[in-house]
Amino acid sequence: MKIIKLNQKIKNMTTGKINVSVENIFPLIKKFLYSDHEIFLRELVSNGTDATLKLKHLISIGEAKVEYGNPIIEIKVDKEGKKIHIIDQGLGMTADEVEKYINQVAFSGAEEFLDKYKDSAKDSGIIGHFGLGFYSAFMVAEKVEIITKSYKDEPAAHWTCDGSPEFTIEPADKTSRGTEIILHVAEDSLEFLEDSKISGLLNKYNKFMPIPIKFGTRTETLPKPEDAPEDYINETIEVDNIINNPNPAWTKQPSELSDEDYKNFYRELYPMQFEEPLFNIHLNVDYPFNLTGILYFPKLGTDMQIQKDKIQLYQNQVYVTDNVEGIVPEFLTMLKGVIDSPDIPLNVSRSGLQADGAVKKISNYITRKVADKLKALFNENRADFEAKWNDIKIVLEYGMLSEDKFYEKAGAFVLYPTVDNTYFTLEELKEKLKENQTDKDGKLVVLYAGNKEEQHSYIETAKAKGYEVLLLDSPIISHLIQKIENDNKDVTFVRVDSDHIDNLIKKEENTISKLSDEEKATLKTSLEAYIPKAYSVQLEAMDSQAAPFIITQPEFMRRMKEMSQTGGGGMFGMGNMPEMYNLVVNTNSDLASSILNTEDKTHQEHLVKQALDLAKLSQNLLKGEALTAFVKRSFEMIK
Amino acid sequence: MKIIKLNQKIKNMTTGKINVSVENIFPLIKKFLYSDHEIFLRELVSNGTDATLKLKHLISIGEAKVEYGNPIIEIKVDKEGKKIHIIDQGLGMTADEVEKYINQVAFSGAEEFLDKYKDSAKDSGIIGHFGLGFYSAFMVAEKVEIITKSYKDEPAAHWTCDGSPEFTIEPADKTSRGTEIILHVAEDSLEFLEDSKISGLLNKYNKFMPIPIKFGTRTETLPKPEDAPEDYINETIEVDNIINNPNPAWTKQPSELSDEDYKNFYRELYPMQFEEPLFNIHLNVDYPFNLTGILYFPKLGTDMQIQKDKIQLYQNQVYVTDNVEGIVPEFLTMLKGVIDSPDIPLNVSRSGLQADGAVKKISNYITRKVADKLKALFNENRADFEAKWNDIKIVLEYGMLSEDKFYEKAGAFVLYPTVDNTYFTLEELKEKLKENQTDKDGKLVVLYAGNKEEQHSYIETAKAKGYEVLLLDSPIISHLIQKIENDNKDVTFVRVDSDHIDNLIKKEENTISKLSDEEKATLKTSLEAYIPKAYSVQLEAMDSQAAPFIITQPEFMRRMKEMSQTGGGGMFGMGNMPEMYNLVVNTNSDLASSILNTEDKTHQEHLVKQALDLAKLSQNLLKGEALTAFVKRSFEMIK
Repeated sequence: MKIIKLNQKIKNMTTGKINVSVENIFPLIKKFLYSDHEIFLRELVSNGTDATLKLKHLISIGEAKVEYGNPIIEIKVDKEGKKIHIIDQGLGMTADEVEKYINQVAFSGAEEFLDKYKDSAKDSGIIGHFGLGFYSAFMVAEKVEIITKSYKDEPAAHWTCDGSPEFTIEPADKTSRGTEIILHVAEDSLEFLEDSKISGLLNKYNKFMPIPIKFGTRTETLPKPEDAPEDYINETIEVDNIINNPNPAWTKQPSELSDEDYKNFYRELYPMQFEEPLFNIHLNVDYPFNLTGILYFPKLGTDMQIQKDKIQLYQNQVYVTDNVEGIVPEFLTMLKGVIDSPDIPLNVSRSGLQADGAVKKISNYITRKVADKLKALFNENRADFEAKWNDIKIVLEYGMLSEDKFYEKAGAFVLYPTVDNTYFTLEELKEKLKENQTDKDGKLVVLYAGNKEEQHSYIETAKAKGYEVLLLDSPIISHLIQKIENDNKDVTFVRVDSDHIDNLIKKEENTISKLSDEEKATLKTSLEAYIPKAYSVQLEAMDSQAAPFIITQPEFMRRMKEMSQTGGGGMFGMGNMPEMYNLVVNTNSDLASSILNTEDKTHQEHLVKQALDLAKLSQNLLKGEALTAFVKRSFEMIK
Repeated sequence: MKIIKLNQKIKNMTTGKINVSVENIFPLIKKFLYSDHEIFLRELVSNGTDATLKLKHLISIGEAKVEYGNPIIEIKVDKEGKKIHIIDQGLGMTADEVEKYINQVAFSGAEEFLDKYKDSAKDSGIIGHFGLGFYSAFMVAEKVEIITKSYKDEPAAHWTCDGSPEFTIEPADKTSRGTEIILHVAEDSLEFLEDSKISGLLNKYNKFMPIPIKFGTRTETLPKPEDAPEDYINETIEVDNIINNPNPAWTKQPSELSDEDYKNFYRELYPMQFEEPLFNIHLNVDYPFNLTGILYFPKLGTDMQIQKDKIQLYQNQVYVTDNVEGIVPEFLTMLKGVIDSPDIPLNVSRSGLQADGAVKKISNYITRKVADKLKALFNENRADFEAKWNDIKIVLEYGMLSEDKFYEKAGAFVLYPTVDNTYFTLEELKEKLKENQTDKDGKLVVLYAGNKEEQHSYIETAKAKGYEVLLLDSPIISHLIQKIENDNKDVTFVRVDSDHIDNLIKKEENTISKLSDEEKATLKTSLEAYIPKAYSVQLEAMDSQAAPFIITQPEFMRRMKEMSQTGGGGMFGMGNMPEMYNLVVNTNSDLASSILNTEDKTHQEHLVKQALDLAKLSQNLLKGEALTAFVKRSFEMIK
């Protein structure tokens, strides 16, 4: 590296090489490399794992002629000496290699290794993504030592550096293969000398790494021998405390795993989660990208748990993050589980992720796999799928709205339940309703309720007429039915309370009115004297047994308003429009006759007001002062 | 910089210096320096601003003997040539300085400058925080040129680098003072050649930087001269399009600003926000840390706007982020506005921020300032404060719960409104209620409603007795009253529907029962024959005019349940407990006598059921099938 000295006056073009001021590289690493200091442990344990897997690979291809054995990685905390030791039994380094891999910052050892052994190393699971990782040690340590002995027949080396660019290197007497890193923890990082802190970090980042990780020991009770005397006291022994599961479920083939295995792994992932998952989706793809993982559909309860136990992203069994926004399609971020892929770029902004080709492919693959799995579950055991519908529908409905690819596949398994818990696919629904719910213009009218309790009287009226009533109660349902109507021009959705029963599905039959036109005009005038302007009065000749007064809310306006309120769609500004209601009065009811025929104006007013209040009650519109007055008046009527 | 070569076998200790492999420094910068590529423009404009402010400072202390003039920074996009130019009129660099500041990566020019001119530079607003900024140019450019002419009498220099460490430097013929950076935009970053993209970025990051920034020109219409003829056509001229406001409101003294200025600045900050802020808080502190800013209390509407227009964090007028979590106390993140402080560490994790002493002091200062301002507003114009209460209460109540420092000060301005819109402080409330709402044990009983509509009949009953009823309808209110009761042992809060009126505030008066004990026993048996087990029947001798049946919900259980549901507090598992209700029957009512005395069992059942339904209506408990049956039955009664 040559730095040219420039004369104060340059006469001709000169060339040179940019010089990286080495005094500033450590602060740079501290400041920019990682925003979380705790990451140092993940990096160093990853390096140890890396060194062990590399050795395994070299042995497997005959390059290294040593015994692999059962290597582990050990973490030791020396609280008094303010030191943390990370010890592996991997390939180790010669003094030359220390010079090459450690003294030359930003030289990624894993990268060179992969270049050299490209083909054979492909499947050996080498972690090559944390090249700069070693230097993260200086985020918490004021001095770092490396004592390392290569698998090659060369003496061990001992490297020491205090965070300035100066280092020393000397011979060491280590005889066992592998590398020991000693961190002399800095005064501002003493928290990392707590056992609980270290085991917390190991549990967060290294829980599923492929080489066993030992942190301390624990006591195990030996089983009682068969021939033990009665007063036998169980013997105990100290065993290594291995904190990780080197072979987590997602690294195995689906064929090796039982339902119970999947459930156990869920508990391993989320030890504080007591609810069992509904089902799982095992992801496993090699080409054109590498991805494994298991996604779980949780029971979506009402508590906050959902937000907490999120999908975890790993790279070659090393935990990276639980923020998978941009990687997993948005509608699936409500799921739980793990995704492991070395092909997802780290340290890239969200907008960068969205533009990344590999990430887009991964996201599409996940969507497709989820749709396929749902279809299979539906086909294999429909009753079970129906029983779980209520817990999964919000995810599926949101998926239909947000991902076209998912929408296309959804017809095969998305269900439309009735208020009586019968479940139809859209095609089955069309077939079922064809005969009785096609209106005079040939449109299939799907009746639905948003709430079984609140719309009870309307539902009962429709059922009495032999109609099926769906229960569609998701918050985004108005958007979804709008989309379904767009794609199925012969189908229209109408909420049960959007008109009176004879108008919901218009047919060629007319109920004859008991009242003459003149009587109707008189009745209307009488009614409008007492009914507030907010309701538009609508006289209808209906069955005499039908409710005398009904309040309806036209479908179109209500749906637009709902869409506008739940964001996106609908019409601009509709969210703030007042609600619109009609008051339908059944001219064939006895009450209509009574109102028309009474001479007593006070009585007439009482009848209209009480009837209006009852209609309002059925539509949940009688509240506050009006309700108090109604209750008081009604107590008077019965005392 | 010397690299020692190690022999294959080390015999003794050797020392050396870590070598930073310069071939890898650019990828390193690209990968780790910033996750958002768009930041390059902020960095380069910051450098230009820096160079201009430095020159101004050198002139002011007599070090530079040149005219300052009216320097601007100009951005030019050459779409065809795929180039972006950033041109400043600052102090420029000599060839030697290019070598020193540009060729030596990680050497912060601003830092050295500040060291040298420490005392005099303190107040000149030099941006020294983006030392590595220049290299961010390589995130979007495949080649970068610098053409620069120092304010010193030396020739201009022209530096070129293609992203490898090789550079060339040659003389240039630039004669005007300042620096021009030319970015040859890389193929994967062509989006930055769009005018709309660049003006978007300038608007996001540089909107309030202290040197005028020109991006293109715009047409301005000249005013009509006074003596213009009738057919005069207005003349137009091209003027510089200055995209920033170099003197934003927060950099001024509060005494220089009118109410209108504050409102105008709010519109400048959030051009898409049409609602005016309720009031503002001007922050201004020099010691022990540096912080300026203006916070606004917005009208907290129901729409999503709140999430969008967040508090913006600046450092010396350069936009940094709108994620101020950890810097501003959580309860104030609902506010809007700006904070400008060079003392907030960037690139630090959230947990790091929380541990940072300066950040903690800043957070405390903001809490104190907000409390002081609220107190002043309350004292200066109480009527206005009361009118705004509903829009600000959620912030203040959350603050009382989460920040002890704020809670201590809150007594002076936090209000408790009645259902009739009278507002009391806690002390005023105690004074007001003392006489009429102290129970027989000397406890002050504060009655409140959670919803004026839903609890209307209960509110009316309490008001009829001369009691004040507060309206406390925030979602976190149960937590807050729990806290207030803890700190005010003589005060208890009771919701109006938690018991019947004579029990809400127990006094030494007893209403005499019309019924004998024997009659009561008979009545109870009759009632319990028809009343579902979910209600526990409670006979009470009340005023004969009071409602015959009332459903109440005991305070303690309900409050614990609510606290458990809104997270934290309450008792474990209470959130899933069933609701508990009592049915209070007024034995002195006419209806109770009718029920007791009727011989007709069918009529008796009808009376009890209708009365229970009416009581359920008042407590919003009559729903679904039961409501439909009630409405049908009631229509029958009036037809």
